[in-house]
Amino acid sequence: MFKKILIANRGEIAVRIIRTCKEMGIKTVSVYSDIDEDSIHVHMADESICIGPSKSQKSYLNIDNIISAAIVTGAEAIHPGYGFLSESIKLVEACDKNGIKFIGPKALHMEMMGNKSMARKTMIEAGVPVVPGSKEATNDEKIAYEIALEVGFPLMVKASSGGGGRGLRIVYNKEEFKEKFNMAKSESEIGFNDDSMYIERFVENPRHIEFQILGDSYGNVVHLGERDCSLQRRNQKVLEEAPCSVIDPSLRKKMGDTALKAARSVGYESVGTIEFLLDRENNFYFIEMNTRIQVEHPITEEIVELDLIREQINVAFGEKLKFTQEDIKMNGHAIECRINAEDPSMNFRPSPGTIEGYFAPGGYGVRVDSHIYNDYTIPPTYDSMIGKVITWGKNREEAIDRMKRALDEMVIVGVKTNIEFQKSILNNERFLKNDIDTSFIEKEIFKKED
Amino acid sequence: MFKKILIANRGEIAVRIIRTCKEMGIKTVSVYSDIDEDSIHVHMADESICIGPSKSQKSYLNIDNIISAAIVTGAEAIHPGYGFLSESIKLVEACDKNGIKFIGPKALHMEMMGNKSMARKTMIEAGVPVVPGSKEATNDEKIAYEIALEVGFPLMVKASSGGGGRGLRIVYNKEEFKEKFNMAKSESEIGFNDDSMYIERFVENPRHIEFQILGDSYGNVVHLGERDCSLQRRNQKVLEEAPCSVIDPSLRKKMGDTALKAARSVGYESVGTIEFLLDRENNFYFIEMNTRIQVEHPITEEIVELDLIREQINVAFGEKLKFTQEDIKMNGHAIECRINAEDPSMNFRPSPGTIEGYFAPGGYGVRVDSHIYNDYTIPPTYDSMIGKVITWGKNREEAIDRMKRALDEMVIVGVKTNIEFQKSILNNERFLKNDIDTSFIEKEIFKKED
Repeated sequence: MFKKILIANRGEIAVRIIRTCKEMGIKTVSVYSDIDEDSIHVHMADESICIGPSKSQKSYLNIDNIISAAIVTGAEAIHPGYGFLSESIKLVEACDKNGIKFIGPKALHMEMMGNKSMARKTMIEAGVPVVPGSKEATNDEKIAYEIALEVGFPLMVKASSGGGGRGLRIVYNKEEFKEKFNMAKSESEIGFNDDSMYIERFVENPRHIEFQILGDSYGNVVHLGERDCSLQRRNQKVLEEAPCSVIDPSLRKKMGDTALKAARSVGYESVGTIEFLLDRENNFYFIEMNTRIQVEHPITEEIVELDLIREQINVAFGEKLKFTQEDIKMNGHAIECRINAEDPSMNFRPSPGTIEGYFAPGGYGVRVDSHIYNDYTIPPTYDSMIGKVITWGKNREEAIDRMKRALDEMVIVGVKTNIEFQKSILNNERFLKNDIDTSFIEKEIFKKED
Repeated sequence: MFKKILIANRGEIAVRIIRTCKEMGIKTVSVYSDIDEDSIHVHMADESICIGPSKSQKSYLNIDNIISAAIVTGAEAIHPGYGFLSESIKLVEACDKNGIKFIGPKALHMEMMGNKSMARKTMIEAGVPVVPGSKEATNDEKIAYEIALEVGFPLMVKASSGGGGRGLRIVYNKEEFKEKFNMAKSESEIGFNDDSMYIERFVENPRHIEFQILGDSYGNVVHLGERDCSLQRRNQKVLEEAPCSVIDPSLRKKMGDTALKAARSVGYESVGTIEFLLDRENNFYFIEMNTRIQVEHPITEEIVELDLIREQINVAFGEKLKFTQEDIKMNGHAIECRINAEDPSMNFRPSPGTIEGYFAPGGYGVRVDSHIYNDYTIPPTYDSMIGKVITWGKNREEAIDRMKRALDEMVIVGVKTNIEFQKSILNNERFLKNDIDTSFIEKEIFKKED
């Protein structure tokens, strides 16, 4: 096994990785920017090296400095965590060049799956369902109509150069196609001086469902079930669950097999996530793959009883998976609430500052992954997430009840947090009935607060 | 279900009970003594009532005040936790008299099982093995010898009036019986003016193994496997494990069946623990029953995936057990380290005071049950235990590795703790090989530290 790993990250994920390394008997090297000198990941690691000033570009995104830190400390491998350089092909290449093992997929996997349009192409070739749509843009109403019939309704007419909803129309049936196409087209022409349009199936009120993938370097790949990450605010996940309670075993098998097909089509290794949209008729479409460990990985860990960071390190070292798909059993239900230092009443703007009082929830079925402590000063420089509360229960109801009491007892003084916002979700009737989709927070929570 | 429960306790167990009540939607009433005004259990409960000055006799042991608090707040039930009044027949009777449900066994169970010699008698009648010994004392060498042959070697010759090792001899075979009997007898005669002697089997280097029992009021009783609580200092448990790795399924079944027989013989209901001594030849002997929830109950919760406080409340309310013995599955391995505010270098004397810095361990497989927080002042009045760290792993080795890293990251500043002492156990080679018994800490840890 590796003797020493450098963690090219900060915050809770750096702490998360150090914990597993310690349990595996692996020495750790933390890197940090000037402003993170008092961060707990600096103190938990066996060694720590400053890699530059607070600005990410100069420190946590500085490949040269990170590689140097690894060489100087004799780290044999680099774990990138999530965010920052976790999906940087350049870091993978720099690692390869310097004989350092990158704990993640190969550069090729990142290239094939990290780019959305290339991934879409790869998936179509592999026979994985993607959101149906036109391959090329067109400004011809007749050609567009033919594509529309092929794609099926409802669909979206999207300006090639569009953005922010301009040059975009949702078309519910063929009768209204012509009118809406031309509206979007002229809007685009005026707005962007470009009248080329794409046609894409409009997936109505979908759930965001992602499958956790784990592959070794011998071609063995398993999935570890799904996570329901439908609860998002501006494409940022807020609260995640595993499993998704509307997915029955046969749909899980179908989606899981598809996720495996996707991963196998590129010979994927390490941990990764295959993301789908799932509509109310149980149609599902590949949207993208994340080629890294994800923030919400703990809920999978809780229901399959595997330490995903440990597995990731094992396969990076060249070990074979010790289990097959049949060995993976899902048990109970897990929920994660992301705790952010932000002010929901001020449009969720970040609320950095010094934590003057902190009481972490505990007890049966509660897990806290965080890097904060009393008197810690959250810098204004990085992500506002300061921790994750994860609860496990025999079923969804129990996990929710446990999360409610965990958040009730959590105390963070000195900065604003989204804890009350999370509670408003947990107490929402539609949420409790598991009647959710990706528009839930926008439509249900914000509407109610108005 | 109960609408409101009063918790007649303090510290981590009060917090523990409040947590489950919250998850069950039950309102809680905390009671506290003057000095515990800032204790977290006071703030976590829906209501709190001061029941007297700091001295336990005047507050946490004051049955009148506790019953009054329950009546005033309209609490329908009282949970006694462990310690204090948890095994007080008087409290049970006072509850009965006032129409308050005592969350625990009936007065009769406490009477039959709480008293050691009565429990021994009850168990002998039920056919449960107890440490073999003479029924009556004798000063007659010949009669004693006959009893000795019956009891078997090694055995102890114990003065009726003895204590502190005086008038006590361990006899390893029948050849040395006569000499040692007479030595003990004359020692006792001189020391206590009483030459009547008891003969009792000497269980060499036993493990302390206890089975968790759960019974409802309909006669259904299950056991939830065993805990190995061999690691004790002066009869105080220090570190507990579940399951016991030297107990194989057939021995577990045998001991479990015996534990069930013991519980059924008195028609036991609620949670309880049947304690055995287990020798190296897998002989086991009932020593006592604890008729309450125990400090170390979380390790059982972790391996059987049940919230024992919830189950205890359910059966107290009159619900039937929702599972049978066959439904109980044990999964993985759990360890608990008790964290005490005490100074191991000063013979473990309590170290009360203000917590100036606190970082609780977290992450995968780690649970913390504690009532402390930053700036909390531990009063000198009560037990020195300030929390419990519980780790779960797929197997014993993983649970130990996780505990080591959890204790490594735990920070408590301002008071002395036994954390380093716990680490010395976790790093001990005999402990790692699971070569432990009740004399382990005395012989192995203290010897090494000399």
